[in-house]
Amino acid sequence: MPAPVLHFDAAEFDARLDRARQSMEAAGLDALVIADPSNMYWLTGYDGWSFYVHQWVVLPIIGEPFWFGRPMDAAGALRTAWLPEADVLSYPEACVQNPDDHPATHLARAMVARGLRLARIGVEMDNYYYTAAADAALRAGLPEARIKDATGLVNWCRAVKSPRELDYMRMAGRIVGAAHARILEVCEPGVPKSTVAAEILKTLTMGVDGEAGDYTAIVPMLPSGSDAAAPHLTWDARPLQAGEGTFFEIGGCYRRYHCPLSRTLFLGQPTDAFLRAEEATLEGMEAGLAAAKPGNTCGDIARAYFAVLAKHGIEKESRAGYAVGVSYPPDWGERTMSIRPSDTSVLQPGMTFHFMTGLWMADMGFEITETVAITETGHELLADVPRKLFVKA
Amino acid sequence: MPAPVLHFDAAEFDARLDRARQSMEAAGLDALVIADPSNMYWLTGYDGWSFYVHQWVVLPIIGEPFWFGRPMDAAGALRTAWLPEADVLSYPEACVQNPDDHPATHLARAMVARGLRLARIGVEMDNYYYTAAADAALRAGLPEARIKDATGLVNWCRAVKSPRELDYMRMAGRIVGAAHARILEVCEPGVPKSTVAAEILKTLTMGVDGEAGDYTAIVPMLPSGSDAAAPHLTWDARPLQAGEGTFFEIGGCYRRYHCPLSRTLFLGQPTDAFLRAEEATLEGMEAGLAAAKPGNTCGDIARAYFAVLAKHGIEKESRAGYAVGVSYPPDWGERTMSIRPSDTSVLQPGMTFHFMTGLWMADMGFEITETVAITETGHELLADVPRKLFVKA
Repeated sequence: MPAPVLHFDAAEFDARLDRARQSMEAAGLDALVIADPSNMYWLTGYDGWSFYVHQWVVLPIIGEPFWFGRPMDAAGALRTAWLPEADVLSYPEACVQNPDDHPATHLARAMVARGLRLARIGVEMDNYYYTAAADAALRAGLPEARIKDATGLVNWCRAVKSPRELDYMRMAGRIVGAAHARILEVCEPGVPKSTVAAEILKTLTMGVDGEAGDYTAIVPMLPSGSDAAAPHLTWDARPLQAGEGTFFEIGGCYRRYHCPLSRTLFLGQPTDAFLRAEEATLEGMEAGLAAAKPGNTCGDIARAYFAVLAKHGIEKESRAGYAVGVSYPPDWGERTMSIRPSDTSVLQPGMTFHFMTGLWMADMGFEITETVAITETGHELLADVPRKLFVKA
Repeated sequence: MPAPVLHFDAAEFDARLDRARQSMEAAGLDALVIADPSNMYWLTGYDGWSFYVHQWVVLPIIGEPFWFGRPMDAAGALRTAWLPEADVLSYPEACVQNPDDHPATHLARAMVARGLRLARIGVEMDNYYYTAAADAALRAGLPEARIKDATGLVNWCRAVKSPRELDYMRMAGRIVGAAHARILEVCEPGVPKSTVAAEILKTLTMGVDGEAGDYTAIVPMLPSGSDAAAPHLTWDARPLQAGEGTFFEIGGCYRRYHCPLSRTLFLGQPTDAFLRAEEATLEGMEAGLAAAKPGNTCGDIARAYFAVLAKHGIEKESRAGYAVGVSYPPDWGERTMSIRPSDTSVLQPGMTFHFMTGLWMADMGFEITETVAITETGHELLADVPRKLFVKA
């Protein structure tokens, strides 16, 4: 077995375990059962497209964490995680998608074997990869344990990025920049949207400077015209048309770190509605970014941005952004902080956000967004893409 | 609002509702709460990358189904589902990733408003998109209802495909065939694996004959050499090397219908281990396919295949395939039938399977697979890609 390929050094992984254990201590937990693939990656390095079967990392507050998954994926765990072979455990292959023998039943047994029979255990109740059935089987197998919700506990530990994490996000920013440049090259009336999506995916995957782009946690969205009022529909073969605007909600990904960034392209002379949306968005973006500094809150950014929208007579119901970093499908957000007026989270150097200033009106959509890192004195843009409505005659 | 774009006619959707309601009747259910995006699509046509927030379709045994999701995605529901506007409902935007106000609490209220307070309700306990927290909030909001597990109920209704569904899968088969042809063109020593992945993704998305390829529910896997022993690791920028084998586990997708198909490529003179794996796989494939006919079981296919492997001295622990069709990330299987000796499901015309004859040894991986539809008399291959170890000198 070759040595695992790790993207962080041992000191950084140790610091992560410490941070998670401090949160566990504060929450009164003896152990965590982690199902979120982003949290599994952040704590151990484990990286594979195997989250379609049940798998977990168990982190006790004292003692070694262990990976618990499908036998065929243990080989991947040994290649990508820093865990020794003794801490890479499996459930029987026959449990895979077998309603009569749930993998979490075996997880409970493994936890008992590690002395966690009576432990206070945190589980990620609202994670995609922690199903109601897994929860029921785990509780049945650990009847004497005290199991409580720890959704987001590790996600919150990930909020402040290390220098190396920021480097990876800057690389993701360069990758998404390359994709936006490619969009401007290939888009013209008559080109099928699927062709544009194909070029975006190719560019995001090729990466830059010999460094591969990873698959992103969300596929490219590129709705045109009135379809852009529905932000999450994916591409079809319809040709781009003159006189129509299209937004491109895409992200770069490098070593699972994301830099989302959206731009809008109008083919032909932009309508007044697009020009007004551009003006309001750019002014709102400036106002929000001016508030993006340590000591302010997520709510401060949101209030500054929404005040500008209101001045322009634009109502936006949805939040204006969220924390980003490591992620796996189906979402590239960290699911902790939101850029919403009600969010009182205090900004700290190293935090990273997608400032998602998208406007979805009744008959159009418009997106010019930025991903930023909070610095000691303000913020840094993690990608360098001209901030304007793109127009191609 | 434009009329929704539907990929099936009303009669086909009606037949699907009937089939689901017959299963509900048999299971003693008055209503189903559906969180699996594949089941939501199959029943209503709803298609968007919005499953990273909570969303459901509720199907009562009597009366109209309704969609319940995030406000911004209601626009997408009206564009893709056959449901009238009165049956497209939303929870407040402020619930999104807000631990203090779960969307399922609002779902429970909507169900009460539709008369389901005392109903016998089926939920998909083991689906990715039905979290333990959603289950707890739903049960708390419907204390007088009787809630039980209905994981897979709709998935099983999808097992036998209609003629139109089979047409879509054949189109997906042509798309995956185009990607394998592209693989043979671009692979040579020194080409980074990320470049090959980029070309695969581009080809899968371009589609064929002016028809777009959809994003697939699993990204391409293309591990080389001894890394191929770990089947679910994704690409990096490492160059392909002479004297090394790489398997390509990919799928085509058309209108959410998948046709997975894997092939293996050796650059240079294949080693004996690869030639032996090819011989065993092709012979095992023939034996399995000979058993792929109506009246036989999934277990019959598995036994025929595994008997050949045993003759060649090869042990394989994992199942040899699974039902396929509509899917969304993270898995393109239907999560019902498996090609395992113990699976007693009886094959019927219109059922579709990925015959996953992959071999993952200690220091290599080998995949030559087929996706097939069961016909009146036997089976049909849904793609047309030469079935052999590809060799490029």
